[in-house]
Amino acid sequence: MKYDKILLEHGSGGLLSNELVANIFLPHFSNSFLERLEDSAILSIGNHKFCFTTDSYVVSPVFFPGGNIGSLAVHGTVNDLAVCGGKPLYMSAGYILEEGFPFAALTEIVQSMADAARGAGIKIVTGDTKVVSRGAVDGIFINTSGIGIIEYEGDLSIKSIKPGDAVILNGTIGDHGAAIMKARENLGLEADIVSDSAPLNGLIAEILKVSTDIHCMRDATRGGLGAILAEIAKSANVDININEQDIPICENVRGICEILGLDPLFLANEGKMVVFCPPAEASKVITVMKGHEFGRNAAVIGNAGESGQGRVVLKTSIGGERIIDLPTGELVPRIC
Amino acid sequence: MKYDKILLEHGSGGLLSNELVANIFLPHFSNSFLERLEDSAILSIGNHKFCFTTDSYVVSPVFFPGGNIGSLAVHGTVNDLAVCGGKPLYMSAGYILEEGFPFAALTEIVQSMADAARGAGIKIVTGDTKVVSRGAVDGIFINTSGIGIIEYEGDLSIKSIKPGDAVILNGTIGDHGAAIMKARENLGLEADIVSDSAPLNGLIAEILKVSTDIHCMRDATRGGLGAILAEIAKSANVDININEQDIPICENVRGICEILGLDPLFLANEGKMVVFCPPAEASKVITVMKGHEFGRNAAVIGNAGESGQGRVVLKTSIGGERIIDLPTGELVPRIC
Repeated sequence: MKYDKILLEHGSGGLLSNELVANIFLPHFSNSFLERLEDSAILSIGNHKFCFTTDSYVVSPVFFPGGNIGSLAVHGTVNDLAVCGGKPLYMSAGYILEEGFPFAALTEIVQSMADAARGAGIKIVTGDTKVVSRGAVDGIFINTSGIGIIEYEGDLSIKSIKPGDAVILNGTIGDHGAAIMKARENLGLEADIVSDSAPLNGLIAEILKVSTDIHCMRDATRGGLGAILAEIAKSANVDININEQDIPICENVRGICEILGLDPLFLANEGKMVVFCPPAEASKVITVMKGHEFGRNAAVIGNAGESGQGRVVLKTSIGGERIIDLPTGELVPRIC
Repeated sequence: MKYDKILLEHGSGGLLSNELVANIFLPHFSNSFLERLEDSAILSIGNHKFCFTTDSYVVSPVFFPGGNIGSLAVHGTVNDLAVCGGKPLYMSAGYILEEGFPFAALTEIVQSMADAARGAGIKIVTGDTKVVSRGAVDGIFINTSGIGIIEYEGDLSIKSIKPGDAVILNGTIGDHGAAIMKARENLGLEADIVSDSAPLNGLIAEILKVSTDIHCMRDATRGGLGAILAEIAKSANVDININEQDIPICENVRGICEILGLDPLFLANEGKMVVFCPPAEASKVITVMKGHEFGRNAAVIGNAGESGQGRVVLKTSIGGERIIDLPTGELVPRIC
């Protein structure tokens, strides 16, 4: 190993996160389920196909415009199931609370989780609460795991991506990351920036109804659109070409990124996904997205290239080319 | 609410833990799965019956005689599935790491998890890693969630307990709690005390093979045998009578309890369970237990009484009677 201690960057969703998984977790836990490295594990039990996913939420601050750690946890889990083609059914909620955490805040968070779960049609069926002494955890961390059932016949997977596939994004990028940064930095900005935290399972179900030929879906959370595309390109060994001018970004998000020196490509989203499908299917997908509250600003942002170098090439607005690699360095810690 | 802030005791597995669940989680998440309040949720999908459980592990110290946070997490999840009659199949592993946590320690923990999972026949199929800055978490916390399939025909549940049922324990109590206290307090004791952390699914499978009339099983973890029995008695509204002299305790555990003023009845176990079954089935269960490495010191420790006051009555070694209630106050924080 190149490091003898955990760095913040090992949790970034970027290069060191991938190294940690590749060097420590995969060799020890080696099994074919884990090795797919998708958002959920795909399991067969009896004659049913399930997906199973887990995520811990350590976001700071706990409350932010557009949600809080509770709604975020539900949406994150629902989306990880949905992009694998799963209909979210059941989830767990594990709380780690700091002694002294206010009851009123906990109640508001739990209420948000309940509302978000109802909104997404998933049931919170099992839970756990641990309390640690002051200073042993920062306020509240939540882990959620989810189970979904897969009824879609196609093989939704990075490995299913084919050269020529259209790359479709369901809306503006960076809203969640920008909302957290604004809440955290106390910038005194007037600009209205709201997290895009949302459940995508309804939208995804509609997409899978109109097309039986979707190849892959991924939600672009930690590490942003840039990290997800770089990971997919590397893992599928396809090139991905995207056009900067086609990527929707809110003006206020662009503004805060300029002030803070952040790249919106690598800012987290919590209600955005990329869809890979044959070009012939793209218009159907775009139509469904634009008709859905969580896809109004959907756009085809590029395509999968022919040559297999596993690179993401961004054609910039002024006509240049930029290679998008897995981010190094922790861009925005504790974003989700 | 009586409190406006979270106290350590809300994580004790005792009275305040139950109040937190009853007053905050159940009203918001209300559904019939969660309301059973067993160790796992029981889910029906298609024609299969599943169990699903989650637990976060915040044990301090992370390494202790008999295991570490990693093996503990696997055993805890396996046991929560197994006592509900589930064959453990798949689990998740979510890590929250503190910046600076040593790679060598993480590797050892992950290795232990892999070994424990192999030993219990469960696969770690999905995971997540978050890293937070120094001071935002104490070293490492792990959440594990597990899925099992239930093939046992009987209804293993607190509600199935009947007056007259034998109460069977599979061995000595308090070993895990005592091992943690010894490791933590740096007492300089020579006494050999090792956590009982172990997977009980193999033993439970054997029990369910020899008897089709087991009524209820629970592992006696946080809060110890005392808290589990008090919770069962209250929830099932049956009295439970137990005999102090029949409860196996290691001499060294008894010794450290005397030194530290702890009651072994309320000390955590990580490889102990209680089984409720008709008296006619008890000898079969005891025979299976005594023939298994995790049940050598098994004993019938009492029975479910006729009157339904929901009390646990301990007949003491000197012939007195003591009511065992849900513990109040945090006895041993961060025990699991």
